[in-house]
Amino acid sequence: MREAVLNHDRPVIQELAASQAQAGADYLDVNVAAGLGDVQQEAADMKWAVGVIREVTDKPLAIDTTDPTVLEQGLEAAGPRAVVNSISLESNRAEPFLKLAARYAALAIVLPVSDAGVPQEPEERLANCRELLAAAQRAGIDAGRLYFDPLVLPLSVNPAYGRAALEALAGIRRQGWQTTLGLSNISYGLPARKVLNRAFLAMAAGAGLDSVILDPLDRELRAGLVASLTLAGEDPMCAGYLRAYRRGELGER
Amino acid sequence: MREAVLNHDRPVIQELAASQAQAGADYLDVNVAAGLGDVQQEAADMKWAVGVIREVTDKPLAIDTTDPTVLEQGLEAAGPRAVVNSISLESNRAEPFLKLAARYAALAIVLPVSDAGVPQEPEERLANCRELLAAAQRAGIDAGRLYFDPLVLPLSVNPAYGRAALEALAGIRRQGWQTTLGLSNISYGLPARKVLNRAFLAMAAGAGLDSVILDPLDRELRAGLVASLTLAGEDPMCAGYLRAYRRGELGER
Repeated sequence: MREAVLNHDRPVIQELAASQAQAGADYLDVNVAAGLGDVQQEAADMKWAVGVIREVTDKPLAIDTTDPTVLEQGLEAAGPRAVVNSISLESNRAEPFLKLAARYAALAIVLPVSDAGVPQEPEERLANCRELLAAAQRAGIDAGRLYFDPLVLPLSVNPAYGRAALEALAGIRRQGWQTTLGLSNISYGLPARKVLNRAFLAMAAGAGLDSVILDPLDRELRAGLVASLTLAGEDPMCAGYLRAYRRGELGER
Repeated sequence: MREAVLNHDRPVIQELAASQAQAGADYLDVNVAAGLGDVQQEAADMKWAVGVIREVTDKPLAIDTTDPTVLEQGLEAAGPRAVVNSISLESNRAEPFLKLAARYAALAIVLPVSDAGVPQEPEERLANCRELLAAAQRAGIDAGRLYFDPLVLPLSVNPAYGRAALEALAGIRRQGWQTTLGLSNISYGLPARKVLNRAFLAMAAGAGLDSVILDPLDRELRAGLVASLTLAGEDPMCAGYLRAYRRGELGER
Protein backbone atom coordinates (compact mmCIF):
# COMPACT_ATOMS: atom_id res chain seq x y z
CA MET A 1 0.00 0.00 0.00
CA ARG A 2 2.87 2.37 0.75
CA GLU A 3 4.08 2.11 -2.86
CA ALA A 4 0.55 2.56 -4.18
CA VAL A 5 0.12 5.75 -2.12
CA LEU A 6 3.53 7.18 -3.10
CA ASN A 7 2.82 6.49 -6.80
CA HIS A 8 -0.85 7.49 -6.59
CA ASP A 9 -1.68 4.08 -8.05
CA ARG A 10 -5.42 4.45 -8.42
CA PRO A 11 -6.33 0.86 -9.47
CA VAL A 12 -4.52 -0.75 -6.51
CA ILE A 13 -6.24 1.52 -3.97
CA GLN A 14 -9.64 1.16 -5.63
CA GLU A 15 -9.44 -2.59 -5.91
CA LEU A 16 -8.56 -2.97 -2.23
CA ALA A 17 -11.35 -0.61 -1.14
CA ALA A 18 -13.91 -2.33 -3.35
CA SER A 19 -12.95 -5.80 -2.14
CA GLN A 20 -13.05 -4.74 1.53
CA ALA A 21 -16.48 -3.21 1.02
CA GLN A 22 -17.65 -6.32 -0.79
CA ALA A 23 -16.34 -8.54 2.03
CA GLY A 24 -18.65 -6.78 4.48
CA ALA A 25 -16.55 -4.06 6.13
CA ASP A 26 -18.81 -1.43 7.74
CA TYR A 27 -16.09 1.26 7.61
CA LEU A 28 -12.90 1.44 5.56
CA ASP A 29 -9.74 2.68 7.29
CA VAL A 30 -7.61 5.12 5.27
CA ASN A 31 -3.99 5.56 6.32
CA VAL A 32 -1.57 7.19 3.86
CA ALA A 33 1.41 7.83 6.14
CA ALA A 34 4.45 6.92 4.08
CA GLY A 35 6.90 7.54 6.90
CA LEU A 36 8.57 10.50 5.16
CA GLY A 37 7.56 13.03 7.83
CA ASP A 38 6.13 15.39 5.21
CA VAL A 39 2.76 16.48 6.58
CA GLN A 40 1.77 18.57 3.56
CA GLN A 41 2.42 15.58 1.31
CA GLU A 42 0.45 13.27 3.64
CA ALA A 43 -2.47 15.73 3.64
CA ALA A 44 -2.47 15.83 -0.17
CA ASP A 45 -2.23 12.04 -0.35
CA MET A 46 -5.16 11.70 2.10
CA LYS A 47 -7.32 13.99 -0.02
CA TRP A 48 -6.38 12.03 -3.14
CA ALA A 49 -6.94 8.60 -1.53
CA VAL A 50 -10.34 9.50 -0.09
CA GLY A 51 -11.36 10.84 -3.50
CA VAL A 52 -10.42 7.67 -5.39
CA ILE A 53 -12.03 5.44 -2.73
CA ARG A 54 -15.22 7.50 -2.95
CA GLU A 55 -15.40 6.61 -6.66
CA VAL A 56 -15.81 2.89 -5.86
CA THR A 57 -17.74 2.75 -2.57
CA ASP A 58 -19.96 4.91 -0.39
CA LYS A 59 -19.01 3.09 2.84
CA PRO A 60 -18.13 5.54 5.61
CA LEU A 61 -14.39 6.03 6.14
CA ALA A 62 -12.07 6.09 9.14
CA ILE A 63 -9.40 8.76 8.74
CA ASP A 64 -6.30 7.19 10.25
CA THR A 65 -3.57 9.73 10.99
CA THR A 66 -1.60 11.34 13.81
CA ASP A 67 -1.65 14.81 12.26
CA PRO A 68 -4.53 17.34 12.49
CA THR A 69 -3.90 18.84 9.02
CA VAL A 70 -4.15 15.39 7.43
CA LEU A 71 -7.24 14.64 9.54
CA GLU A 72 -8.98 17.81 8.39
CA GLN A 73 -8.29 17.05 4.70
CA GLY A 74 -9.61 13.53 5.20
CA LEU A 75 -12.77 14.55 7.04
CA GLU A 76 -13.50 17.29 4.51
CA ALA A 77 -13.18 14.84 1.61
CA ALA A 78 -14.86 11.83 3.29
CA GLY A 79 -18.33 13.27 3.84
CA PRO A 80 -20.83 12.20 6.47
CA ARG A 81 -20.46 9.49 9.13
CA ALA A 82 -16.65 9.50 9.13
CA VAL A 83 -14.57 8.17 12.01
CA VAL A 84 -11.50 9.84 13.52
CA ASN A 85 -8.87 7.13 14.09
CA SER A 86 -7.68 8.00 16.65
CA ILE A 87 -7.69 10.50 19.53
CA SER A 88 -5.35 10.15 22.51
CA LEU A 89 -4.49 12.28 25.54
CA GLU A 90 -1.15 13.25 24.03
CA SER A 91 -0.96 17.04 24.31
CA ASN A 92 -0.53 17.72 20.58
CA ARG A 93 -3.42 15.47 19.65
CA ALA A 94 -6.32 15.73 22.10
CA GLU A 95 -7.57 19.29 21.56
CA PRO A 96 -7.20 19.74 17.77
CA PHE A 97 -8.53 16.23 17.05
CA LEU A 98 -11.57 16.67 19.30
CA LYS A 99 -12.34 20.03 17.68
CA LEU A 100 -12.24 18.49 14.21
CA ALA A 101 -14.35 15.50 15.30
CA ALA A 102 -16.94 17.92 16.69
CA ARG A 103 -16.91 20.20 13.64
CA TYR A 104 -17.40 17.30 11.19
CA ALA A 105 -19.87 15.43 13.47
CA ALA A 106 -17.62 12.38 13.25
CA LEU A 107 -17.38 9.29 15.41
CA ALA A 108 -14.03 8.83 17.15
CA ILE A 109 -11.82 5.99 18.34
CA VAL A 110 -10.14 7.03 21.58
CA LEU A 111 -6.87 5.58 22.83
CA PRO A 112 -5.96 5.80 26.53
CA VAL A 113 -2.37 6.91 25.77
CA SER A 114 -1.00 10.09 27.35
CA ASP A 115 2.27 12.04 27.23
CA ALA A 116 3.42 9.61 29.95
CA GLY A 117 3.08 6.78 27.41
CA VAL A 118 1.05 3.59 27.35
CA PRO A 119 -0.19 2.57 30.81
CA GLN A 120 0.55 -1.05 31.74
CA GLU A 121 -2.27 -1.48 34.24
CA PRO A 122 -5.92 -1.83 33.18
CA GLU A 123 -6.90 0.64 35.94
CA GLU A 124 -4.62 3.37 34.52
CA ARG A 125 -6.03 2.77 31.06
CA LEU A 126 -9.53 3.24 32.45
CA ALA A 127 -8.47 6.46 34.18
CA ASN A 128 -7.15 7.78 30.84
CA CYS A 129 -10.43 6.79 29.17
CA ARG A 130 -12.34 8.78 31.79
CA GLU A 131 -10.15 11.80 31.09
CA LEU A 132 -10.67 11.42 27.33
CA LEU A 133 -14.43 11.23 27.80
CA ALA A 134 -14.39 14.45 29.86
CA ALA A 135 -12.32 16.22 27.19
CA ALA A 136 -14.66 14.97 24.47
CA GLN A 137 -17.72 16.19 26.35
CA ARG A 138 -16.12 19.64 26.79
CA ALA A 139 -15.67 19.68 23.00
CA GLY A 140 -19.36 18.84 22.56
CA ILE A 141 -18.98 15.15 21.72
CA ASP A 142 -21.01 12.73 23.82
CA ALA A 143 -20.08 9.18 24.85
CA GLY A 144 -22.33 7.63 22.19
CA ARG A 145 -19.98 8.89 19.47
CA LEU A 146 -16.83 7.43 21.03
CA TYR A 147 -15.31 3.98 20.69
CA PHE A 148 -12.81 3.16 23.45
CA ASP A 149 -9.79 1.07 22.51
CA PRO A 150 -8.25 -0.84 25.46
CA LEU A 151 -4.82 -0.77 23.72
CA VAL A 152 -3.60 -4.01 22.27
CA LEU A 153 0.17 -4.44 22.55
CA PRO A 154 2.17 -7.33 21.07
CA LEU A 155 2.44 -10.61 22.97
CA SER A 156 5.95 -10.86 21.54
CA VAL A 157 6.96 -7.94 23.78
CA ASN A 158 5.21 -9.30 26.87
CA PRO A 159 3.02 -12.43 27.07
CA ALA A 160 0.85 -10.66 29.69
CA TYR A 161 -0.35 -8.08 27.14
CA GLY A 162 -3.22 -10.24 25.89
CA ARG A 163 -4.70 -10.57 29.38
CA ALA A 164 -4.08 -6.84 30.03
CA ALA A 165 -6.01 -5.84 26.90
CA LEU A 166 -8.93 -8.15 27.77
CA GLU A 167 -9.13 -6.81 31.33
CA ALA A 168 -9.07 -3.21 30.13
CA LEU A 169 -11.74 -4.08 27.55
CA ALA A 170 -14.01 -5.64 30.18
CA GLY A 171 -13.45 -2.59 32.41
CA ILE A 172 -14.43 -0.17 29.63
CA ARG A 173 -17.50 -2.26 28.88
CA ARG A 174 -18.56 -2.22 32.55
CA GLN A 175 -18.62 1.61 32.33
CA GLY A 176 -21.23 1.27 29.59
CA TRP A 177 -18.92 2.74 26.95
CA GLN A 178 -18.61 1.42 23.40
CA THR A 179 -15.49 -0.59 22.61
CA THR A 180 -13.19 -1.33 19.69
CA LEU A 181 -9.67 -2.67 19.21
CA GLY A 182 -6.97 -3.08 16.60
CA LEU A 183 -6.86 -6.86 16.34
CA SER A 184 -3.60 -7.68 14.58
CA ASN A 185 -1.40 -5.72 17.01
CA ILE A 186 -1.62 -8.70 19.36
CA SER A 187 0.37 -10.99 17.05
CA TYR A 188 3.03 -8.53 15.85
CA GLY A 189 6.45 -10.22 15.82
CA LEU A 190 5.13 -13.78 16.08
CA PRO A 191 4.70 -16.43 13.36
CA ALA A 192 1.33 -17.84 12.20
CA ARG A 193 -0.27 -14.51 13.13
CA LYS A 194 -3.70 -15.46 11.81
CA VAL A 195 -4.03 -18.27 14.37
CA LEU A 196 -3.49 -15.76 17.18
CA ASN A 197 -5.69 -13.09 15.59
CA ARG A 198 -8.62 -15.50 15.27
CA ALA A 199 -8.43 -16.77 18.83
CA PHE A 200 -8.00 -13.22 20.18
CA LEU A 201 -11.05 -12.00 18.26
CA ALA A 202 -13.21 -14.68 19.94
CA MET A 203 -11.76 -13.89 23.37
CA ALA A 204 -12.36 -10.18 22.92
CA ALA A 205 -15.91 -10.80 21.69
CA GLY A 206 -16.47 -12.80 24.88
CA ALA A 207 -15.11 -9.91 26.95
CA GLY A 208 -17.42 -7.38 25.29
CA LEU A 209 -16.41 -6.00 21.92
CA ASP A 210 -18.73 -3.66 20.00
CA SER A 211 -16.55 -3.17 16.92
CA VAL A 212 -13.13 -4.23 15.71
CA ILE A 213 -10.44 -3.14 13.27
CA LEU A 214 -9.47 -6.21 11.24
CA ASP A 215 -8.65 -7.48 7.78
CA PRO A 216 -12.06 -8.20 6.18
CA LEU A 217 -10.35 -10.21 3.43
CA ASP A 218 -9.36 -12.96 5.91
CA ARG A 219 -12.19 -15.40 5.25
CA GLU A 220 -11.67 -17.62 8.28
CA LEU A 221 -11.41 -14.59 10.53
CA ARG A 222 -14.79 -13.43 9.25
CA ALA A 223 -16.27 -16.90 9.88
CA GLY A 224 -14.86 -16.72 13.41
CA LEU A 225 -16.44 -13.28 13.86
CA VAL A 226 -19.86 -14.58 12.86
CA ALA A 227 -19.47 -17.52 15.28
CA SER A 228 -18.24 -15.20 18.04
CA LEU A 229 -21.25 -12.91 17.77
CA THR A 230 -23.54 -15.95 17.96
CA LEU A 231 -21.69 -17.34 20.98
CA ALA A 232 -21.81 -13.95 22.71
CA GLY A 233 -25.62 -14.02 22.46
CA GLU A 234 -25.78 -11.21 19.93
CA ASP A 235 -27.40 -13.22 17.13
CA PRO A 236 -31.08 -13.89 17.94
CA MET A 237 -32.23 -17.35 16.78
CA CYS A 238 -28.69 -17.85 15.40
CA ALA A 239 -30.11 -16.26 12.24
CA GLY A 240 -26.89 -14.50 11.21
CA TYR A 241 -24.92 -17.70 11.71
CA LEU A 242 -27.33 -19.79 9.65
CA ARG A 243 -27.39 -17.16 6.90
CA ALA A 244 -23.58 -17.13 6.74
CA TYR A 245 -23.62 -20.93 6.56
CA ARG A 246 -26.11 -20.98 3.68
CA ARG A 247 -23.95 -18.46 1.81
CA GLY A 248 -20.93 -20.73 2.23
CA GLU A 249 -19.12 -18.18 4.38
CA LEU A 250 -18.27 -20.61 7.19
CA GLY A 251 -16.09 -22.95 5.12
CA GLU A 252 -16.68 -26.57 4.29
CA ARG A 253 -16.62 -28.08 7.74
CA MET B 1 -17.86 -46.00 18.22
CA ARG B 2 -21.22 -47.48 19.27
CA GLU B 3 -20.83 -50.28 16.68
CA ALA B 4 -17.24 -50.90 17.75
CA VAL B 5 -18.31 -51.25 21.39
CA LEU B 6 -21.25 -53.55 20.60
CA ASN B 7 -19.03 -55.76 18.43
CA HIS B 8 -16.00 -55.52 20.74
CA ASP B 9 -14.02 -54.33 17.74
CA ARG B 10 -10.58 -54.13 19.30
CA PRO B 11 -8.63 -52.51 16.39
CA VAL B 12 -11.10 -49.61 16.02
CA ILE B 13 -11.01 -48.78 19.75
CA GLN B 14 -7.24 -49.16 19.96
CA GLU B 15 -6.55 -47.06 16.89
CA LEU B 16 -8.70 -44.21 18.20
CA ALA B 17 -7.11 -44.34 21.65
CA ALA B 18 -3.59 -44.44 20.21
CA SER B 19 -4.24 -41.54 17.84
CA GLN B 20 -5.81 -39.39 20.60
CA ALA B 21 -2.83 -40.09 22.86
CA GLN B 22 -0.45 -39.29 20.01
CA ALA B 23 -2.30 -36.02 19.31
CA GLY B 24 -1.53 -34.82 22.82
CA ALA B 25 -4.60 -35.67 24.92
CA ASP B 26 -3.73 -35.67 28.63
CA TYR B 27 -6.64 -37.98 29.52
CA LEU B 28 -8.75 -40.25 27.31
CA ASP B 29 -12.51 -40.32 27.89
CA VAL B 30 -14.11 -43.79 27.84
CA ASN B 31 -17.87 -43.96 27.29
CA VAL B 32 -19.39 -47.30 26.27
CA ALA B 33 -23.10 -46.54 26.77
CA ALA B 34 -24.83 -48.11 23.80
CA GLY B 35 -28.27 -46.83 24.76
CA LEU B 36 -29.68 -50.32 25.40
CA GLY B 37 -30.34 -49.69 29.11
CA ASP B 38 -28.49 -52.87 30.08
CA VAL B 39 -26.22 -51.88 32.97
CA GLN B 40 -24.56 -55.30 33.37
CA GLN B 41 -23.67 -55.24 29.67
CA GLU B 42 -22.35 -51.67 29.93
CA ALA B 43 -20.22 -52.65 32.95
CA ALA B 44 -18.74 -55.60 31.04
CA ASP B 45 -18.14 -53.38 27.99
CA MET B 46 -16.39 -50.77 30.18
CA LYS B 47 -14.06 -53.39 31.65
CA TRP B 48 -13.30 -54.70 28.16
CA ALA B 49 -12.75 -51.23 26.64
CA VAL B 50 -10.44 -50.06 29.43
CA GLY B 51 -8.45 -53.26 29.05
CA VAL B 52 -7.92 -52.91 25.30
CA ILE B 53 -7.08 -49.19 25.64
CA ARG B 54 -4.53 -50.04 28.35
CA GLU B 55 -2.73 -52.24 25.81
CA VAL B 56 -1.94 -49.23 23.57
CA THR B 57 -1.48 -46.28 25.96
CA ASP B 58 -0.78 -45.56 29.61
CA LYS B 59 -2.53 -42.16 29.56
CA PRO B 60 -4.89 -41.77 32.50
CA LEU B 61 -8.55 -42.40 31.67
CA ALA B 62 -11.83 -40.60 32.37
CA ILE B 63 -14.60 -43.09 33.11
CA ASP B 64 -17.65 -41.56 31.49
CA THR B 65 -20.91 -43.10 32.71
CA THR B 66 -24.11 -42.36 34.63
CA ASP B 67 -24.14 -45.71 36.46
CA PRO B 68 -22.15 -46.55 39.61
CA THR B 69 -21.66 -50.24 38.68
CA VAL B 70 -20.12 -49.23 35.36
CA LEU B 71 -18.04 -46.59 37.11
CA GLU B 72 -16.65 -49.10 39.58
CA GLN B 73 -15.66 -51.54 36.83
CA GLY B 74 -13.97 -48.71 34.95
CA LEU B 75 -12.06 -47.33 37.93
CA GLU B 76 -10.95 -50.83 38.97
CA ALA B 77 -9.61 -51.56 35.48
CA ALA B 78 -8.17 -48.10 34.74
CA GLY B 79 -5.57 -47.92 37.49
CA PRO B 80 -4.13 -44.77 39.05
CA ARG B 81 -4.96 -41.13 38.24
CA ALA B 82 -8.38 -41.87 36.76
CA VAL B 83 -11.12 -39.25 36.44
CA VAL B 84 -14.80 -39.74 37.27
CA ASN B 85 -16.84 -38.12 34.47
CA SER B 86 -19.09 -36.95 36.01
CA ILE B 87 -20.71 -36.35 39.41
CA SER B 88 -23.92 -34.31 39.77
CA LEU B 89 -26.31 -33.53 42.62
CA GLU B 90 -28.91 -35.93 41.22
CA SER B 91 -29.94 -38.13 44.15
CA ASN B 92 -29.00 -41.45 42.54
CA ARG B 93 -25.59 -40.17 41.52
CA ALA B 94 -23.99 -37.95 44.14
CA GLU B 95 -23.36 -40.32 47.06
CA PRO B 96 -22.31 -43.54 45.26
CA PHE B 97 -20.13 -41.65 42.75
CA LEU B 98 -18.38 -39.63 45.46
CA LYS B 99 -17.71 -42.81 47.47
CA LEU B 100 -16.13 -44.48 44.46
CA ALA B 101 -14.07 -41.39 43.59
CA ALA B 102 -12.79 -41.35 47.17
CA ARG B 103 -12.06 -45.09 47.28
CA TYR B 104 -10.09 -45.03 44.01
CA ALA B 105 -8.39 -41.67 44.78
CA ALA B 106 -9.72 -40.36 41.47
CA LEU B 107 -10.15 -36.84 40.17
CA ALA B 108 -13.76 -35.87 39.40
CA ILE B 109 -15.63 -33.63 37.01
CA VAL B 110 -18.63 -32.15 38.82
CA LEU B 111 -21.77 -30.93 37.09
CA PRO B 112 -24.07 -28.44 38.83
CA VAL B 113 -27.22 -30.40 37.85
CA SER B 114 -29.72 -31.45 40.53
CA ASP B 115 -32.99 -33.40 40.63
CA ALA B 116 -34.62 -30.05 39.78
CA GLY B 117 -32.75 -30.13 36.44
CA VAL B 118 -30.27 -27.79 34.81
CA PRO B 119 -30.31 -24.30 36.34
CA GLN B 120 -30.62 -21.49 33.81
CA GLU B 121 -29.00 -18.78 35.89
CA PRO B 122 -25.23 -18.67 36.52
CA GLU B 123 -25.94 -17.92 40.21
CA GLU B 124 -27.95 -21.14 40.65
CA ARG B 125 -25.21 -23.11 38.94
CA LEU B 126 -22.71 -21.66 41.40
CA ALA B 127 -24.98 -22.59 44.32
CA ASN B 128 -25.10 -26.18 43.05
CA CYS B 129 -21.31 -26.18 42.72
CA ARG B 130 -21.02 -25.08 46.35
CA GLU B 131 -23.32 -27.94 47.41
CA LEU B 132 -21.29 -30.44 45.36
CA LEU B 133 -18.06 -29.23 46.95
CA ALA B 134 -19.54 -29.69 50.44
CA ALA B 135 -20.70 -33.23 49.56
CA ALA B 136 -17.28 -34.06 48.11
CA GLN B 137 -15.52 -32.79 51.22
CA ARG B 138 -17.82 -34.93 53.43
CA ALA B 139 -16.74 -37.91 51.30
CA GLY B 140 -13.08 -37.02 51.91
CA ILE B 141 -12.37 -35.40 48.51
CA ASP B 142 -10.88 -31.91 48.60
CA ALA B 143 -11.41 -29.10 46.08
CA GLY B 144 -8.05 -29.72 44.43
CA ARG B 145 -9.32 -33.01 43.02
CA LEU B 146 -12.48 -31.52 41.49
CA TYR B 147 -13.02 -29.90 38.09
CA PHE B 148 -16.19 -27.81 37.93
CA ASP B 149 -18.12 -27.79 34.66
CA PRO B 150 -20.29 -24.66 34.16
CA LEU B 151 -22.69 -26.69 31.96
CA VAL B 152 -22.59 -26.00 28.26
CA LEU B 153 -26.00 -26.25 26.60
CA PRO B 154 -26.64 -25.97 22.84
CA LEU B 155 -26.99 -22.53 21.25
CA SER B 156 -29.52 -24.14 18.93
CA VAL B 157 -31.88 -24.46 21.92
CA ASN B 158 -31.26 -20.93 23.19
CA PRO B 159 -28.76 -18.40 21.78
CA ALA B 160 -28.19 -17.11 25.35
CA TYR B 161 -26.62 -20.42 26.45
CA GLY B 162 -23.13 -19.44 25.29
CA ARG B 163 -23.10 -16.31 27.45
CA ALA B 164 -24.66 -18.27 30.38
CA ALA B 165 -21.88 -20.89 30.26
CA LEU B 166 -19.16 -18.22 30.11
CA GLU B 167 -20.64 -16.33 33.06
CA ALA B 168 -20.93 -19.50 35.15
CA LEU B 169 -17.35 -20.38 34.19
CA ALA B 170 -16.04 -16.98 35.28
CA GLY B 171 -18.02 -17.31 38.52
CA ILE B 172 -16.51 -20.73 39.28
CA ARG B 173 -13.06 -19.39 38.54
CA ARG B 174 -13.57 -16.44 40.89
CA GLN B 175 -14.18 -18.98 43.69
CA GLY B 176 -10.69 -20.33 43.04
CA TRP B 177 -12.01 -23.70 41.86
CA GLN B 178 -10.62 -25.63 38.88
CA THR B 179 -12.71 -25.58 35.72
CA THR B 180 -13.48 -27.76 32.73
CA LEU B 181 -16.20 -27.97 30.09
CA GLY B 182 -17.52 -30.22 27.34
CA LEU B 183 -16.76 -28.08 24.29
CA SER B 184 -18.83 -29.54 21.48
CA ASN B 185 -22.16 -29.34 23.36
CA ILE B 186 -22.29 -25.67 22.41
CA SER B 187 -22.72 -26.37 18.68
CA TYR B 188 -25.11 -29.34 18.87
CA GLY B 189 -27.84 -28.97 16.24
CA LEU B 190 -26.07 -26.30 14.20
CA PRO B 191 -24.08 -26.62 10.95
CA ALA B 192 -20.33 -25.96 10.60
CA ARG B 193 -19.91 -27.01 14.24
CA LYS B 194 -16.12 -26.75 14.18
CA VAL B 195 -16.29 -23.01 13.52
CA LEU B 196 -18.37 -22.54 16.68
CA ASN B 197 -16.29 -24.97 18.74
CA ARG B 198 -13.06 -23.15 17.89
CA ALA B 199 -14.39 -19.71 18.72
CA PHE B 200 -16.00 -20.98 21.94
CA LEU B 201 -12.75 -22.59 23.08
CA ALA B 202 -10.94 -19.23 22.77
CA MET B 203 -13.76 -17.41 24.59
CA ALA B 204 -13.77 -19.96 27.40
CA ALA B 205 -9.98 -19.81 27.69
CA GLY B 206 -10.34 -16.04 28.06
CA ALA B 207 -12.95 -16.53 30.81
CA GLY B 208 -10.71 -18.93 32.76
CA LEU B 209 -10.56 -22.54 31.63
CA ASP B 210 -8.18 -24.99 33.33
CA SER B 211 -9.01 -28.04 31.22
CA VAL B 212 -11.40 -28.97 28.44
CA ILE B 213 -13.08 -32.02 26.93
CA LEU B 214 -12.54 -31.82 23.16
CA ASP B 215 -11.65 -33.80 20.06
CA PRO B 216 -7.84 -33.90 20.05
CA LEU B 217 -7.88 -35.05 16.42
CA ASP B 218 -9.20 -31.65 15.23
CA ARG B 219 -5.91 -30.07 14.18
CA GLU B 220 -7.15 -26.51 13.85
CA LEU B 221 -8.86 -26.75 17.22
CA ARG B 222 -5.54 -27.78 18.76
CA ALA B 223 -3.78 -24.85 17.06
CA GLY B 224 -6.49 -22.58 18.48
CA LEU B 225 -5.92 -24.07 21.94
CA VAL B 226 -2.19 -23.33 21.79
CA ALA B 227 -2.94 -19.75 20.67
CA SER B 228 -5.58 -19.34 23.39
CA LEU B 229 -3.22 -20.39 26.16
CA THR B 230 -0.64 -17.90 24.87
CA LEU B 231 -3.23 -15.11 24.66
CA ALA B 232 -4.46 -15.90 28.17
CA GLY B 233 -0.94 -15.28 29.50
CA GLU B 234 -0.33 -18.93 30.37
CA ASP B 235 2.62 -19.47 28.02
CA PRO B 236 5.74 -17.72 29.39
CA MET B 237 7.92 -16.21 26.63
CA CYS B 238 5.37 -17.64 24.13
CA ALA B 239 7.58 -20.75 24.23
CA GLY B 240 4.75 -23.25 23.76
CA TYR B 241 3.40 -21.27 20.84
CA LEU B 242 6.78 -21.03 19.12
CA ARG B 243 7.43 -24.75 19.69
CA ALA B 244 4.05 -25.64 18.14
CA TYR B 245 4.91 -23.40 15.18
CA ARG B 246 8.29 -25.04 14.62
CA ARG B 247 6.61 -28.46 14.69
CA GLY B 248 4.17 -27.31 12.00
CA GLU B 249 1.19 -27.64 14.33
CA LEU B 250 -0.20 -24.17 13.64
CA GLY B 251 -0.86 -24.69 9.93
CA GLU B 252 0.76 -22.96 7.01
CA ARG B 253 -0.24 -19.41 7.68
